[in-house]
Amino acid sequence: MLALTILGSNSAIAAFGRNPTSQLLQTNEDFLLIDCGEGTQMQMSKFKVKKSKINHIFISHLHGDHYFGLVGLISSMALQNRSNDLHLYAPPPLKDIIDLQLKVADATLPFNLLFHGLGEDGVIADLPTLTVSSFKVCHRIDCWGFKFKEKTNLRSIVPARAKAYEIPPDFYSRLQSGEDYVNAKGTIIPNDQVTVEGPHASQYAYCADTKFHKSIVECVKNSDLIYYETTYLKDRQELAESRYHSTTVDAASVAKAAKAGKLIIGHFSSKYEQLENFLTETKEIFTNTELAIEGTCFKI
Amino acid sequence: MLALTILGSNSAIAAFGRNPTSQLLQTNEDFLLIDCGEGTQMQMSKFKVKKSKINHIFISHLHGDHYFGLVGLISSMALQNRSNDLHLYAPPPLKDIIDLQLKVADATLPFNLLFHGLGEDGVIADLPTLTVSSFKVCHRIDCWGFKFKEKTNLRSIVPARAKAYEIPPDFYSRLQSGEDYVNAKGTIIPNDQVTVEGPHASQYAYCADTKFHKSIVECVKNSDLIYYETTYLKDRQELAESRYHSTTVDAASVAKAAKAGKLIIGHFSSKYEQLENFLTETKEIFTNTELAIEGTCFKI
Repeated sequence: MLALTILGSNSAIAAFGRNPTSQLLQTNEDFLLIDCGEGTQMQMSKFKVKKSKINHIFISHLHGDHYFGLVGLISSMALQNRSNDLHLYAPPPLKDIIDLQLKVADATLPFNLLFHGLGEDGVIADLPTLTVSSFKVCHRIDCWGFKFKEKTNLRSIVPARAKAYEIPPDFYSRLQSGEDYVNAKGTIIPNDQVTVEGPHASQYAYCADTKFHKSIVECVKNSDLIYYETTYLKDRQELAESRYHSTTVDAASVAKAAKAGKLIIGHFSSKYEQLENFLTETKEIFTNTELAIEGTCFKI
Repeated sequence: MLALTILGSNSAIAAFGRNPTSQLLQTNEDFLLIDCGEGTQMQMSKFKVKKSKINHIFISHLHGDHYFGLVGLISSMALQNRSNDLHLYAPPPLKDIIDLQLKVADATLPFNLLFHGLGEDGVIADLPTLTVSSFKVCHRIDCWGFKFKEKTNLRSIVPARAKAYEIPPDFYSRLQSGEDYVNAKGTIIPNDQVTVEGPHASQYAYCADTKFHKSIVECVKNSDLIYYETTYLKDRQELAESRYHSTTVDAASVAKAAKAGKLIIGHFSSKYEQLENFLTETKEIFTNTELAIEGTCFKI
């Protein structure tokens, strides 16, 4: 199971108590931060997210509302004497920015900051519980979306049957991996006699900042959950396109064409105080839509 | 009159709802921001401070808790189509950081950002209502304090006397500047017959991050208000010095020796949730002390 917590959901300028973009994605083992706008570390405190647990950070692009909180977060981790590695997946120039800011502060990190520059589409991280891929979206500057696919190659053991065949529990992890069991008499117990197919491998697609482009549909198809930006309502379609952003109609169209399970919309323009119309307009095309309200946790 | 509003008062890591350092200093004409930690623009929204009014920003040093909110603030000003000049007084390397962050975002500012690199002690800004000086303090990296001195060279007119001498109101501004009046008959009305000394010129000294050093006393002497950091309580004097920070005793000693009118203490370590002891310890040496509680406005 994946759990996605919204830490910030507004576009460029923080407004109406809404903060710039950041999300926390967690599994049983991995804690990932997706984008890190200004104030993300304060949002993490507010929603009781432990900085120390985060081992992987993904930054979609170098507009400030997606990364101005990053060096502050890293600095706080350093002050709190973090020692475990931190992996950062981001547009290559971000490394220079971080290095320069650490240098002027005469600061050295007490942990390894492992920088992975984004480039071609494809797998960028192979984690214990997730495979992460990046894909280019269509924004004013280089910008990447991310796809997080749960690893569930493991089969589920049927305990009663495994016991009936007297399979010792220390062999169970090999059963989960699909192995047959050979007992003391040399009899082969076929794996499918004691296991069934494992749980569904959930997939989450984060589409970052982008204008509508049909190539995105292919990148995110069959995701259980898609986050797609809706900077504007549909009456601002032209403005949205000119600024390389999207509307409610764009978001809903992508979710529908991609056969998504659920759609979350966010990155609301500071023009809008009320968000009800975002939901209404999007649901007209794609029913299973929710707003990216800060503090909300979506289970996938 | 000067008005100082505290926007952030915590040290390096935001904690207990306290934000990193930032203060707003305003006169009838000038709006100045002093330091700009992460989240300052959100604090400005919270306390109804208009970004557009700020024309001068002073950054004491390049530890992140004093400037990580700056590029976000500048970016928001740009998105809100600011057109008037913005003056920035800061350690010289900050210019490279800003330029790099604007470049990777492919952003150009719609207003002039006039950068003034800090260096030798002395006057750095001559504003309509204030003279601003910088002075080096004693921190782990280059760090400057700032002294803000109100301009009140103007004399106050005594209306009844000016009327008695039939001085026309359009000459009043020249009376305020100290000129004598010559009437139609050629009679000289000496200035001091119709004016009295103007109001007291208030002075505010911001001592930034520093360990105790007696040279600071000389820099801030006779200030009506001093802000001095108290990262630690007095039982951590050694730790404070080793980290180039101060205690309650340091702050109070400077205020007392400098014959300050009032002392504000802040930059509290994240070790402390409760702040009462800061006030108690400081008041033992310097009575007129207040905590830099966020949102508080001190009139000078």
